[in-house]
Amino acid sequence: MTEAPIMTLDEIEDLAYRTLVAAGTSDANARPLARATAATEAEGIVSHGLAYIPTYCEHVRCGKVDGRAQPVLSRPAPSVVSVDAATGFAHPAIELGFEVLIPTARELGMAALAVRNSYNCGVLGYHTRRLAMEGLLAIGFTNAPASIAPVGGRRPVLGTNPFSLAAPDGAGGVAVLIDQSASVIAKSEIMKHAREGLPIPSEWALDPEGHPTTDPEIALKGSMAPSGGYKGVGVALMVEIMAAAMTGATLGVNASPFSGTKGGPPRTGQFFLALAPDASSGGLFAGRLAALVEELHDQPGVRVPGDGRRAARRRAERRGVAVNPATLEKVNAWL
Amino acid sequence: MTEAPIMTLDEIEDLAYRTLVAAGTSDANARPLARATAATEAEGIVSHGLAYIPTYCEHVRCGKVDGRAQPVLSRPAPSVVSVDAATGFAHPAIELGFEVLIPTARELGMAALAVRNSYNCGVLGYHTRRLAMEGLLAIGFTNAPASIAPVGGRRPVLGTNPFSLAAPDGAGGVAVLIDQSASVIAKSEIMKHAREGLPIPSEWALDPEGHPTTDPEIALKGSMAPSGGYKGVGVALMVEIMAAAMTGATLGVNASPFSGTKGGPPRTGQFFLALAPDASSGGLFAGRLAALVEELHDQPGVRVPGDGRRAARRRAERRGVAVNPATLEKVNAWL
Repeated sequence: MTEAPIMTLDEIEDLAYRTLVAAGTSDANARPLARATAATEAEGIVSHGLAYIPTYCEHVRCGKVDGRAQPVLSRPAPSVVSVDAATGFAHPAIELGFEVLIPTARELGMAALAVRNSYNCGVLGYHTRRLAMEGLLAIGFTNAPASIAPVGGRRPVLGTNPFSLAAPDGAGGVAVLIDQSASVIAKSEIMKHAREGLPIPSEWALDPEGHPTTDPEIALKGSMAPSGGYKGVGVALMVEIMAAAMTGATLGVNASPFSGTKGGPPRTGQFFLALAPDASSGGLFAGRLAALVEELHDQPGVRVPGDGRRAARRRAERRGVAVNPATLEKVNAWL
Repeated sequence: MTEAPIMTLDEIEDLAYRTLVAAGTSDANARPLARATAATEAEGIVSHGLAYIPTYCEHVRCGKVDGRAQPVLSRPAPSVVSVDAATGFAHPAIELGFEVLIPTARELGMAALAVRNSYNCGVLGYHTRRLAMEGLLAIGFTNAPASIAPVGGRRPVLGTNPFSLAAPDGAGGVAVLIDQSASVIAKSEIMKHAREGLPIPSEWALDPEGHPTTDPEIALKGSMAPSGGYKGVGVALMVEIMAAAMTGATLGVNASPFSGTKGGPPRTGQFFLALAPDASSGGLFAGRLAALVEELHDQPGVRVPGDGRRAARRRAERRGVAVNPATLEKVNAWL
């Protein structure tokens, strides 16, 4: 068995950048995606780090994403920024939008960014965290191809649709980073079990008739179980309304899959809210949040959302990241 | 057994108004609360309709809420409205804020309302629905005294903290009304089982050691189970950050109980976002939302959040509401 090579975050970003460019992505689009890839590896979210690069490259090649797209920004209202991702990657579209969102939120107290004709934005919390690092309270929504059936139904209508909230600590850092999907488990976990021929816990997914199943292959033909039953469906519906209806993006039920090469661009959406916490709280935000985080940490064994990623990031910044040799081989095959 | 008398919605509002005034509430504060009480009865949410009026009256009497408070509005930023409820009822504070929030959201594309030094706002979806009736997409958050323990802990830190999203249908109505707490079940259900001496399902609550319990009395000394485990805690945390930290209100862990007469004003908070959907969606919002609702309704047995309340409201507008005689007796005792 080959030992996992240790790579620095700069090396990971550089490798991701070169690979994306080799596949036909423009410099301007490859850079934000490469940065996000390194940050995702740093946070230990292996599924969306370098392991995703071959999929991105494949999607550039087959036209599911336009690697040379130029996102277009508009200002439909003073507090609202809108970006048409033009079927390109989500990351450069979001980055373009943030350039206007951040100063607008500071000036007006809050602002929103709507992104349409977009693509899988990777780890949603990567984007909200960037806003929180600017001192803004951020909430993000992104929709995905339908995989959750509403309670009482069997046919998927909503995606695993995550939301994320990132709260600044008042000192240039991030105190809380919530980033959670509406399903019990990520779809990638079920796909992994299918590849490995392993059964899944019965609470993860439903068969095409709407009954629990332990067979990952049957689960992939059925639907993902919503977390907490109808309340998980409610969260998925909130996210769908924000990320698709509020942006004019494609509904998850009409979107092409994020995996595989078929169906053309998914044209899904992202929606971000950025709020200046000192305006609405009369300057009390940082103190209240610190007290809340302290109450949570006061009990042994309790982790605050974001703690795990922060610890992983600090380790990775010091020591680099051990990258799976099989992943590296697949990435290098594109160079 | 006495037959339940049928009351019109106007009669319910009038009774609630006179009762609140008799207990010492000012005219200006009693009216919005009475209107909400009638609307809540209309939607079939019996626990927060006339049945709550004796608690409101008791709280005015003991000083847990200041029935004569005058909420104070300020504009800390162009997109942000702030209201200090001055330990009065939440309803007049929210109503005052909405008068500025609605035109500001229309003018700027979006705006926020932060309410602090507030009280239990009743049914959160009542307030978000009012914004949606004005053609705005509304998201609301309100915090409550701590009753949910974080995963891995035993001591409650977060309230059952609901969020609500109300989406306008583009024709003066409301297409979707999500209104859900972060717990598996409402605390009032556990209190009801305790009063009736009935056991509760083991997935509703935890004992003080953090283990599932079927004894409602022990559950009330322990904590409420979060819906979907750590994801329910994540929702409760999002709501706490928005309703308390972002408003400068009191954290649930420091708030006095909403029931009983002890502890003085809870000083909890509410936060509302109001967005003009046509700005961010380029005019596509109503069409996308209608298509989404149709996809959900396309499966027999599937209800869209808000369907039940809408049907109840239509029935109540035509036929009035059958009011529990015991509730009426308790309300009339204050006149």
